[in-house]
Amino acid sequence: MTVSTEVLQTIEGIKKISEKSMKQAKTHIDSLTKPIGSLGKIEALATQLAGITNNPFPHVSPPGIAVFAADHGVSEMGVSAYPKDVTAQMVYNFLNGGAAINAFAKQINAVLKIVDVGVAQELEHDQLEQKKVKNGTNNFAYEQAMSNDEVNQAIQVGIDTTVKLLDEGAKTIIVGEMGIGNTTSASAIISLITGCSLEDAVGYGTGITDTIRENKITIISKALQDRQPNRNDPFDILTKIGGLEIASMTGAILKAAEQKVPVIVDGFICTAAAVLAVLMEENVRDYLIAGHQSQEKGHIHGLSYLQKKPLLQLDLRLGEGTGAALAFPLLQAATNMLNDMATFESAGVSEHN
Amino acid sequence: MTVSTEVLQTIEGIKKISEKSMKQAKTHIDSLTKPIGSLGKIEALATQLAGITNNPFPHVSPPGIAVFAADHGVSEMGVSAYPKDVTAQMVYNFLNGGAAINAFAKQINAVLKIVDVGVAQELEHDQLEQKKVKNGTNNFAYEQAMSNDEVNQAIQVGIDTTVKLLDEGAKTIIVGEMGIGNTTSASAIISLITGCSLEDAVGYGTGITDTIRENKITIISKALQDRQPNRNDPFDILTKIGGLEIASMTGAILKAAEQKVPVIVDGFICTAAAVLAVLMEENVRDYLIAGHQSQEKGHIHGLSYLQKKPLLQLDLRLGEGTGAALAFPLLQAATNMLNDMATFESAGVSEHN
Repeated sequence: MTVSTEVLQTIEGIKKISEKSMKQAKTHIDSLTKPIGSLGKIEALATQLAGITNNPFPHVSPPGIAVFAADHGVSEMGVSAYPKDVTAQMVYNFLNGGAAINAFAKQINAVLKIVDVGVAQELEHDQLEQKKVKNGTNNFAYEQAMSNDEVNQAIQVGIDTTVKLLDEGAKTIIVGEMGIGNTTSASAIISLITGCSLEDAVGYGTGITDTIRENKITIISKALQDRQPNRNDPFDILTKIGGLEIASMTGAILKAAEQKVPVIVDGFICTAAAVLAVLMEENVRDYLIAGHQSQEKGHIHGLSYLQKKPLLQLDLRLGEGTGAALAFPLLQAATNMLNDMATFESAGVSEHN
Repeated sequence: MTVSTEVLQTIEGIKKISEKSMKQAKTHIDSLTKPIGSLGKIEALATQLAGITNNPFPHVSPPGIAVFAADHGVSEMGVSAYPKDVTAQMVYNFLNGGAAINAFAKQINAVLKIVDVGVAQELEHDQLEQKKVKNGTNNFAYEQAMSNDEVNQAIQVGIDTTVKLLDEGAKTIIVGEMGIGNTTSASAIISLITGCSLEDAVGYGTGITDTIRENKITIISKALQDRQPNRNDPFDILTKIGGLEIASMTGAILKAAEQKVPVIVDGFICTAAAVLAVLMEENVRDYLIAGHQSQEKGHIHGLSYLQKKPLLQLDLRLGEGTGAALAFPLLQAATNMLNDMATFESAGVSEHN
């Protein structure tokens, strides 16, 4: 770790993924009844999954999905197309099964957890993971988003959620989010760490106008000027920019990597969390699979920093973990190829001339 | 139909897809709890599926997959990386559950049929659909691939197979193929109909060398010169070039469209069959969904002719229906979005500012 905090010390060293298992998987793939390399990216994915799990015959089902919800003080600056109340309303929608992530999670038989790590209002529901650290971040346009201690707590919520999902049998981790205003924080994070301009990092979020987007750039630019977060210090960035759900996602990703479990990266916000996790611990990178490239302008810069090519390109811009959930069947297919196909020898099929 | 043959007369007129159902689906999608348009291509897919099925709340599961197998006389010219026997060997592999399409079909709970429409050897298996029209096509380098009557019979096998799959409950049709040498026929078909050069239409198939590829181009070029198939007559093209499995796939696609059932187009060979189907009946186009863009060079020209953007780009080059099967979960997701999500009103979520 480049950053040492009490909470991150609970994560044990994240190891490189297993070269040996990757080699074993690759050799096996080349013996299967299909022309060598003919399953393209599915083969590369299968090899990566073997390396991550240290098992040439890995399993990825069921996936575990955690949707972290939190509010952003900066939303009072009018940076979103939706009012702040929508964060809480959507949490209830998740809990009642009506959102896109519910439909997609059900399709892939996922274990789904909805976590309140910082929604501004009090929420009541027996299925809700009540882990509120703070009633939303402070407005980072005027002050730091939260305290060091709050960042620690939010990261710990993410770590604990991954542990819970793994305890319930999850073999792949997907982290999603809900937080009106969170593309503003994510844009600031992506611009800071990857070095891309705010012009390149700031997009249209859930559907803002050009004028609002210009305003969003001005607000972030001034905040970065005033707060001067250290771009090499993910902890300082989270303290000054937020958000609570991004900190939790970072913790959830770190814990999954420590436990040798693949993480499917979702859209722009999730990618900001993954970038923070890689900045904390370089080896995290190899545990990540980019689910998709979203329509949000800055996403490509985050994916480049992660050195990842996305599995899907569907012009999504929803979040919640939806893009990662849509990509999950490709991980299943990769492992089904490894586990279910016959070899040329076992099937009595002639090999290449 | 631009081409009238006795067998095609068994297909009733293929209607345009329903504008009304598409509009109803679109209105419903825009009322769901997500920013408008935020599910990108999934939304467009859902709308198309509503139009195809004439139902704003369509269902696509279970899919039905038919793998048509046949040999190609032209394989004796050394155009493939594999010996001709592999066609029969792979049919047994399909029947014994060891191929990639078996692994992927199982993942999506597909009804799977393996159809011998023209394998050169006699095959015995109780799960095999025995529909052999001919022991492989004649070598189109020297003579026409088959007779008019054989083309009719092979198309009818495809029609009958779709009927059987639909009778067994299939709500989406995927057609795959196995036939050593069949990229040679498909390249000739794609070049002829789309007008792209043979240089652009001929790729590396299952993994041939540059020299074999050059040879493949020369063989096709001379055959087209000698046989002069009429590029506006799909029936003449099938007679002169083949293959039997491509004719069956064309029939299967036509019947699915007539029955208002979506068809997921697989790779290069399947795209050649889809191009033939569209040439027979323009309205087929709207029933097609391009599953993926393969690594085979000429695929993009076929997809352009179909006016389709692929859902996946995974560098596949296997066939068997594998790429279409990998794309199927995205159709499921599109229909799950339509059928399972809450509306802003029902969930009590505030709409756009």
